[in-house]
Amino acid sequence: MKSVTRLDLDDARSLIEGASAEAGRIGVPMCIAITDESGQLIAFERMEGGKVTSSTIAIDKAFTAAAAKKATHDYGTASQPGQPAYGIASAIGGRLMVVGGGLPVIWQNEVVGGIGISSGSPAQDQQVAQAGIDAWMAKQG
Amino acid sequence: MKSVTRLDLDDARSLIEGASAEAGRIGVPMCIAITDESGQLIAFERMEGGKVTSSTIAIDKAFTAAAAKKATHDYGTASQPGQPAYGIASAIGGRLMVVGGGLPVIWQNEVVGGIGISSGSPAQDQQVAQAGIDAWMAKQG
Amino acid sequence: MKSVTRLDLDDARSLIEGASAEAGRIGVPMCIAITDESGQLIAFERMEGGKVTSSTIAIDKAFTAAAAKKATHDYGTASQPGQPAYGIASAIGGRLMVVGGGLPVIWQNEVVGGIGISSGSPAQDQQVAQAGIDAWMAKQG
Amino acid sequence: MKSVTRLDLDDARSLIEGASAEAGRIGVPMCIAITDESGQLIAFERMEGGKVTSSTIAIDKAFTAAAAKKATHDYGTASQPGQPAYGIASAIGGRLMVVGGGLPVIWQNEVVGGIGISSGSPAQDQQVAQAGIDAWMAKQG
Repeated sequence: MKSVTRLDLDDARSLIEGASAEAGRIGVPMCIAITDESGQLIAFERMEGGKVTSSTIAIDKAFTAAAAKKATHDYGTASQPGQPAYGIASAIGGRLMVVGGGLPVIWQNEVVGGIGISSGSPAQDQQVAQAGIDAWMAKQG
Repeated sequence: MKSVTRLDLDDARSLIEGASAEAGRIGVPMCIAITDESGQLIAFERMEGGKVTSSTIAIDKAFTAAAAKKATHDYGTASQPGQPAYGIASAIGGRLMVVGGGLPVIWQNEVVGGIGISSGSPAQDQQVAQAGIDAWMAKQG
Repeated sequence: MKSVTRLDLDDARSLIEGASAEAGRIGVPMCIAITDESGQLIAFERMEGGKVTSSTIAIDKAFTAAAAKKATHDYGTASQPGQPAYGIASAIGGRLMVVGGGLPVIWQNEVVGGIGISSGSPAQDQQVAQAGIDAWMAKQG
Repeated sequence: MKSVTRLDLDDARSLIEGASAEAGRIGVPMCIAITDESGQLIAFERMEGGKVTSSTIAIDKAFTAAAAKKATHDYGTASQPGQPAYGIASAIGGRLMVVGGGLPVIWQNEVVGGIGISSGSPAQDQQVAQAGIDAWMAKQG
């Protein structure tokens, strides 16, 4: 057997709080999803004004980032036409997200969860995801 | 009626063993899936550190390679924008994989199964799939 | 954050080996799936003569048992007509299995994974799943 | 490796022809599907007046009968409330059919394919499936 470290619900709330604050600051209401390191959902919030379609997308971004241990925008680069991972975007029933806004949450060099943001531009989504992680990291001391 | 030749469970284990050894050699833990010639799963292993997303992807790469009798990277070429098979990646609910790492297992000019590898780069996945086949072939005398 | 204990690949192989031996003893070739505590697949084998339909069913039984922390036959009881969980069988796209043959793998009062067996009668499937767990437990000292 | 015997396209046409004749005789236009022993579709016909919904149902009945090596009406009995396989009807995304009309095609004690019929009552569907098999068997000498 082995032991793995993962986000708990308090961590998930911190991540959402940090992301939500940044989303408020830039004026883009977001869907915010947090998964554990296996890609399973821990917490989710759709801010007032967040897009309904973005619920699934945010969850799938967090899933991809955690379970593939990779930022979704990195898949975006790797899956462009002519690039090696071209076509990966439709894998796993379309859950494999290659659009920016999904980041693995890393602690002491291990992926412990994922955060996925959707409703803004991919650049905004990514920025808000990073802000969630930064806020959470600041609490880890 | 007709008779078809296909991999059995011992073959599947040999293929996994060969692929696993190569994955260890290059230091990339992989998900490894083996299907029969109809694309139906025979055996699967997720190595320690293999990605959770790669379980489905490896199985679908093996399915595609066996059932379409074609290496998945060949679909990658054929499905680029402007090419005839453009868009095929999302077929069959996204199971049709066009990313490298799925190879048909061929015996005496017939497809007898498929091997699918995922967790590394597509080039690494393909290399490990080939190593699985090479190890299995070496046992066929 | 928190720490969770889960099966590793060696554990999965032990569980498969134990289940496979029992399946051989009773003369019913089985599909055997092992997941981690999050319900994500670690290893799978379809024995010679195991049913093709049982591949998905075994994987989904293991998923259900691990991720719901409940034996699938317990869901069978709870989901009978007139019972509180009636209709749960079609949840999660049909992945929530209520037929016997899926057991959580428990270690020191915690669910560390799941085993799912399919191809025999539900009673046989459950017996083989239990044998897999017993064989694995015997190795834990 | 191993060798398996399965229906070819000529067999599939014979099975459809026999089923179609019986459907005409009883005045119920049917959807008729034939799969190989792995449950993969070989041939399909929707008779004039056959139901559109029955296309998928016939294919899934043939898939179930072949890949589970079991008549679908036997699953119907085994999956009644209180019976051991209760709840199996929604397995494999709902493809596991427990309604009569799917029969394995057996040759020399081995399942070599499946036939699935839909559009009539389950009893009619089963009767027409059996007629397809009888007509095909008569040609095997």
